[in-house]
Amino acid sequence: MRAGTLALGLAAMTMAVTTASATGTLNAFTAPASARAEVEGGAEAKASPVYGVTLPRGYRSWTLISVAQENGKNNDIRAILGNDIAVKAFREGKRPFPDGAVIVRLAWRYQSSPRNDAVFPAPQSFVAGDPINVQVSVKDSRRYAASGGWGYGQFENGGATPGSALMQACAACHSKLEEGADRVFTAWAP
Amino acid sequence: MRAGTLALGLAAMTMAVTTASATGTLNAFTAPASARAEVEGGAEAKASPVYGVTLPRGYRSWTLISVAQENGKNNDIRAILGNDIAVKAFREGKRPFPDGAVIVRLAWRYQSSPRNDAVFPAPQSFVAGDPINVQVSVKDSRRYAASGGWGYGQFENGGATPGSALMQACAACHSKLEEGADRVFTAWAP
Repeated sequence: MRAGTLALGLAAMTMAVTTASATGTLNAFTAPASARAEVEGGAEAKASPVYGVTLPRGYRSWTLISVAQENGKNNDIRAILGNDIAVKAFREGKRPFPDGAVIVRLAWRYQSSPRNDAVFPAPQSFVAGDPINVQVSVKDSRRYAASGGWGYGQFENGGATPGSALMQACAACHSKLEEGADRVFTAWAP
Repeated sequence: MRAGTLALGLAAMTMAVTTASATGTLNAFTAPASARAEVEGGAEAKASPVYGVTLPRGYRSWTLISVAQENGKNNDIRAILGNDIAVKAFREGKRPFPDGAVIVRLAWRYQSSPRNDAVFPAPQSFVAGDPINVQVSVKDSRRYAASGGWGYGQFENGGATPGSALMQACAACHSKLEEGADRVFTAWAP
């Protein structure tokens, strides 16, 4: 590595640290190298800005926690999946979630289904259209202490959505939930 | 077993066969004893009328295939899960589904979430409310030859919903789908 490149990298990381510290979120020094690349503007980063969260291997086969549907700008239908640690906590109603819990939210376009409506007795059917993005919440009470123990990431087409403002919005929104929710929107759907 | 009880049982089974044959659906002779009990009017049957389909053990942990939402009389939000055989076929786009494929549809009340709306930027959020029922489709091309290779069941609170008319409605509705769908509404959500 050339000295100039190293210096530039360190300067960018220092800037990121300064910015993140001001908002109380995590900084680039706690994130893995792949996340630091994103902080520095890498276009196809595999880890989220600020938190260094990656898309978990095999998440698509994880257990369903619940489903939801958002109107407005989101206009999506979604499924929330969890790894075994998260699912166990959901099933037992355990809060706060233990370290290692990972929750994955998949969103697809909320789409009317003329095909189903032609068969059903009334026009009423909405299905999952094109995938929009996947959001990941990782519980690590020490690493993510500054954001209530949760690190966040958003992924589109397998790559992390860039922008530290988006990540700070995750934390800000989740932190508005009632005491005792451990910053989690979703409840177990029996 | 007393001779009188046996004779009564056979008479009931013969009636069931006569009724089912007229509509082209399966008859009580192909269903297990638990389903026959339901045909004969058992109140807490574990197997569906007509098809003798049971609620699969561990289905709640099966892999998510997709999500959907139905308005109108249904007013539900739903998740469709599958066993490994079904999921493999969905992932590979394989039709018809191989024998042993099982698809489970869970439906919950489609419910506005004031809690989420208080946090989100706009009133827009709908979540899974109380569970409504679980519908199960089992592929067995020989056993269920008369209904396109699929047997059906609906379950509420762990018990099979009674009524052969409901089961015949399952088959009738699924059979209206286009050629090549193998009578399955759901597509894999990536």
